Amino acid sequence: MPSLSELMKKWKNPVEMLRNSRSGIYVYPVVAPEFANWRDEQRAWRESAVLFDQSHHMDELIVEGPQATEFLSHHGINRFDNFGLNRAKHYVPVTPAGHVIGDHIIFREREDKYVLVGRAPTANWLMFAAAWGNWNVRLRHDPRSPSRPEGERVLRVHYRYQIQGPEAWKVIEKMNGGPIPDIPFFHVDWINVGSKRVQALRHGMSGAPGLEIWGPYEDKSYILSTILQAAEDAGVNLVRCGSRAYSTNTLESGWIPSPLPGIYTGEGMLADYRDWLGDDMYEAVGSIGGSFVSDNIEDYYMTPFDLGYGFYIGWNKDDFIGKAALQEMKDKPHRKKVTFEWNRDDVLKVIATAFEDGTPMKWIDFPQPNYASTSADMVLEGDRMVGLSMFNGYSFNERALLSLGVVDPDVEVGDVLTLKWGEPEPTMKTSTERHRQADIRVRVCPAPYARQARESYAPGSWRTKAEKAAG
Amino acid sequence: MPSLSELMKKWKNPVEMLRNSRSGIYVYPVVAPEFANWRDEQRAWRESAVLFDQSHHMDELIVEGPQATEFLSHHGINRFDNFGLNRAKHYVPVTPAGHVIGDHIIFREREDKYVLVGRAPTANWLMFAAAWGNWNVRLRHDPRSPSRPEGERVLRVHYRYQIQGPEAWKVIEKMNGGPIPDIPFFHVDWINVGSKRVQALRHGMSGAPGLEIWGPYEDKSYILSTILQAAEDAGVNLVRCGSRAYSTNTLESGWIPSPLPGIYTGEGMLADYRDWLGDDMYEAVGSIGGSFVSDNIEDYYMTPFDLGYGFYIGWNKDDFIGKAALQEMKDKPHRKKVTFEWNRDDVLKVIATAFEDGTPMKWIDFPQPNYASTSADMVLEGDRMVGLSMFNGYSFNERALLSLGVVDPDVEVGDVLTLKWGEPEPTMKTSTERHRQADIRVRVCPAPYARQARESYAPGSWRTKAEKAAG
Repeated sequence: MPSLSELMKKWKNPVEMLRNSRSGIYVYPVVAPEFANWRDEQRAWRESAVLFDQSHHMDELIVEGPQATEFLSHHGINRFDNFGLNRAKHYVPVTPAGHVIGDHIIFREREDKYVLVGRAPTANWLMFAAAWGNWNVRLRHDPRSPSRPEGERVLRVHYRYQIQGPEAWKVIEKMNGGPIPDIPFFHVDWINVGSKRVQALRHGMSGAPGLEIWGPYEDKSYILSTILQAAEDAGVNLVRCGSRAYSTNTLESGWIPSPLPGIYTGEGMLADYRDWLGDDMYEAVGSIGGSFVSDNIEDYYMTPFDLGYGFYIGWNKDDFIGKAALQEMKDKPHRKKVTFEWNRDDVLKVIATAFEDGTPMKWIDFPQPNYASTSADMVLEGDRMVGLSMFNGYSFNERALLSLGVVDPDVEVGDVLTLKWGEPEPTMKTSTERHRQADIRVRVCPAPYARQARESYAPGSWRTKAEKAAG
Repeated sequence: MPSLSELMKKWKNPVEMLRNSRSGIYVYPVVAPEFANWRDEQRAWRESAVLFDQSHHMDELIVEGPQATEFLSHHGINRFDNFGLNRAKHYVPVTPAGHVIGDHIIFREREDKYVLVGRAPTANWLMFAAAWGNWNVRLRHDPRSPSRPEGERVLRVHYRYQIQGPEAWKVIEKMNGGPIPDIPFFHVDWINVGSKRVQALRHGMSGAPGLEIWGPYEDKSYILSTILQAAEDAGVNLVRCGSRAYSTNTLESGWIPSPLPGIYTGEGMLADYRDWLGDDMYEAVGSIGGSFVSDNIEDYYMTPFDLGYGFYIGWNKDDFIGKAALQEMKDKPHRKKVTFEWNRDDVLKVIATAFEDGTPMKWIDFPQPNYASTSADMVLEGDRMVGLSMFNGYSFNERALLSLGVVDPDVEVGDVLTLKWGEPEPTMKTSTERHRQADIRVRVCPAPYARQARESYAPGSWRTKAEKAAG
């Protein structure tokens, strides 16, 4: 298996490599596209309750051993001194240069055992880092499910469900067979699901408490049946969410799932990492899609400050990878995370071209028009690029196309900018048809966008910045 | 398991029962939604070549035994005197009242063995009929794959692939390792696929010959790899078609997949059939969606004449189920099958409401907006209903929303009518969000719509009506 380094030699630069990836759309695999219909599935997380099946789309990495805490603390920006048992954090590793590699939700199950869940780049980085730094940790990696199993059986180590929405708690208490002790946000406790004791992370969406539960994959059917029965008994319209609606929930809650891992440049540890990565791994087969094209891959990198994670940083830790670089950046101006609300008339003009002969504008697929694992669309003020749109989708709750991204420090909420939609010239990507570019006006809005999420998502996350419980 | 008869007693009438079905969207299961993107997948069957994986969405029924021919001939309208070995037909059973039950492709494999492939209603009817009429036939039924397998393994008796498009033949000859003898349309022969001998049905689309091949399901991966390698060796851009694009191919070729089986009324054999059918079968859990609402379920029934299958009828057969009724209808005026081309501006007005507050018009999901197993939308001339739209979808090749349906005899190609889009009031169907109705102008066009398909689909099918080889 050739390495990423070897693969990169075949291309003019890594941007060209990733913009021409033929791996196809980054899908949310295995889960049915729709159980009801994607409009009502979106509506359910705002109005009643929704069941997310998160068993398949994320990597899981178990880190245990005498040095587990020290290892993870050294490779993430987060504080670990407040990381008690039975809680979770939003874990962010960066490169020595301070660029975000990815992010995982990390659960502390024992003094010396953590479970991490998220996209591949964080798992890959930690697997490499354990060997590279000669750490005394045991790792167990369960990669996400295949994108197109085509009828073959798919097994994971754990099932993972989330119940969210204003009526979620009624279902959860019915399932538990009684009231649940007050679990603080991003803390973990044990609850009953029928006859089983199950770990549950207190989460939240749309201003109401929800839970994420997980356990051995072989319990999945039992757990699912028990949840559905509990919803029926509680008289709650719990809607199972399919893969088409699933990936759009983040547009309302404001998390950007897809920053490009900042690992394509840099020497030392990073060069060794590229020699370690195989040419079939996320970093090699992932794709960049969108109107923003730069020869310099670093122009796609994000810092924790850009993404609003600056307040996670454990400055008091003796050292961690990237600390020096982040210290350097700390007091300089940073980009900020926002939601772009797409102009309705401009969107309709794009759609109209699908009914005309000739090359249409880039089709906006509903509800999820992303066509690469990393989206990068230019956001302009006049001719000047002032932002990057990074994750797109339609929200039936907001009756709008929204995208998440970053803008320069001088851009303000309320500004109307122009998003360049579509790529300047054809690439080898299989995920997009030949198309023309379009200008779509976008209004800069806060992230998270949804009024409810914005005002009452939860204490203790970057969503409110009121506390730092998730950091 | 209660029967359909018992289930029907719980409802005011069967229309109400089917319009409130909660079984969800009728999906094309197991096959990935997209391999490339649905626009390019549609384009491939017009411009290069496409690979359809038809292994999962249809029932298969094997009928063998001393009375196999007599049994099938008695339960279908088709001629059997010209049904030699190694050919196929488009088999249409009707009720004693002459209403279409469904249709299957039927292959004659031996003197006393046939394989039938299609939606459930034809398979169910034949299974019932064999016992009801005390026929000496052995039946083996392989129902279609589950709609939402959610990671569980799915097995069928046979894999089934189709290679279609203007460059399909190059792939097929490469796969065969040499030229293929001229197989007449809808005839079967054996070809090589790598090291295997495989049965192939000569089919065609977009005016070019194609093949459908099948064999034991355990050979599926080998066959797929061999086809893809052959395409590469032949230098043909063979695009795998996902489930989102798949179901739209019929809009260009003009076959209506979803007539409602005419079995909800009638006494004698039909009453016995409803006692035999279980309340979990297609006829009980299937759904009707659309603006046409009648208290009389017979208003949804089709005759072979309506669907353009009148010329299949084997009038010279001594008897077959429905013969007397069809003879009665024969010389009366019939509806005719057409394609409706939806007005672009009206479509855009519907889409625009997805960006406004309040109850939107019914969302048109791309490329496949059907939201029931049987679609029934009213087509009006002024206030007068003059047609029924029965299968909807968007064609990137035609840059248009199209639907297939039937119109009254006096409607002419070129007429502009109004399609009522959306349901008059909410139902219990999970497949549609709450919505308002919309008027969409439609232009009446021939079926098949596509110029190429219309002019050169193949000799010997209802598509050209030039010969009767498929009947």
